Amino acid sequence: MPKLRAHNITITLDGYATGTDQRLDAPFGDGVDGLHEWMFAALRARDEGDEGAAGIDADYVELGDENIGATIMGRNMFGPVRGAWQDESWTGWWGDNPPFHHDVFVRTHHLRPSLPMKGGTTFHFTDEPAETVLRRAFEAAAGQDVRLGGGPTTIQQYVRAGLLDELHLVVTPMLAGKGVRLFDNWGDEIDGYQVAEQVSSAAVTHVRLIRR
Amino acid sequence: MPKLRAHNITITLDGYATGTDQRLDAPFGDGVDGLHEWMFAALRARDEGDEGAAGIDADYVELGDENIGATIMGRNMFGPVRGAWQDESWTGWWGDNPPFHHDVFVRTHHLRPSLPMKGGTTFHFTDEPAETVLRRAFEAAAGQDVRLGGGPTTIQQYVRAGLLDELHLVVTPMLAGKGVRLFDNWGDEIDGYQVAEQVSSAAVTHVRLIRR
Repeated sequence: MPKLRAHNITITLDGYATGTDQRLDAPFGDGVDGLHEWMFAALRARDEGDEGAAGIDADYVELGDENIGATIMGRNMFGPVRGAWQDESWTGWWGDNPPFHHDVFVRTHHLRPSLPMKGGTTFHFTDEPAETVLRRAFEAAAGQDVRLGGGPTTIQQYVRAGLLDELHLVVTPMLAGKGVRLFDNWGDEIDGYQVAEQVSSAAVTHVRLIRR
Repeated sequence: MPKLRAHNITITLDGYATGTDQRLDAPFGDGVDGLHEWMFAALRARDEGDEGAAGIDADYVELGDENIGATIMGRNMFGPVRGAWQDESWTGWWGDNPPFHHDVFVRTHHLRPSLPMKGGTTFHFTDEPAETVLRRAFEAAAGQDVRLGGGPTTIQQYVRAGLLDELHLVVTPMLAGKGVRLFDNWGDEIDGYQVAEQVSSAAVTHVRLIRR
């Protein structure tokens, strides 16, 4: 059975996955500068052939791209625009050749036509229920798994709907003080998860949560 | 300058330091069984001479006892009794020779006479402000540091008062779902702390937070 998987979901020691006031020049909001630095540093090291520095951090990042045929994300992960689209000039954070190379379903109340990009990525905008979007994504993935992007609110929705099979969590040694906590609003579904794995690098702690 | 230090403060991945409904047969409440198992396992291993298994977990626990001359704790850490004392038969969780061997200040609205125990521990019950209790503890410690016990609410009070110098935090790979979060109610004081150290064992991640 194909799975719905979230990867590289990084939280501070005090539990925040995003800060406050997400916007164009602060995609994750204020108070969380450096939240994903562990990932960028590991991938840079791998690019430079420095396997000692790349280590398990880079391995985990690459694992997140394996056997993925479609992606679901919340609107905040797609961009900083809030409310109705003023125009359709915003095409995501990733330039004209986004790194997905498959169908990406963006959950938003503000619909717009599907947006084909270079390299095989097509963004679809949908206000359908979580279950419906997941069904469409599994169809698009054609037997491969579906990846669930962020933000934390989107992850919480799929957890509460009982649809998230696996979550790769990363705890990074910093404090944010405020923002959106990953582990708020899971409801009783939190009892459905167990820790399958915990491994630490010099930089962060990786935890794999799976449904029981 | 002597310091106020908290040690072995253990939280779940979702941030809880205690569960719900703390009571006699569940001193840390429901939902957090095994929260401190990392500590008991490490100390058992050290007792048995198995240094490989004791490792840095046992080192950190022992560090928490070094150069400590007095302790401050909240009432819930002293015992499960709530409201007025029915009688004075409860003398703490630790038997008649508690492991402190110095003055212990228990913060409670329900006063009772100081309670000298075997081995040099004396429990003092006080409803004085956090600052006053700390001053008394520093006097009792006579130049050594003061240790701040739990629970999380007591730690939050000393953080907000700007009085906690150092916090040894332990993140253990389990989920609780509810309870009291360590990192709630820190207010702006959270900006005053930085991560001085992060080290992981096979079992848990240790983080040392210090005031900037």
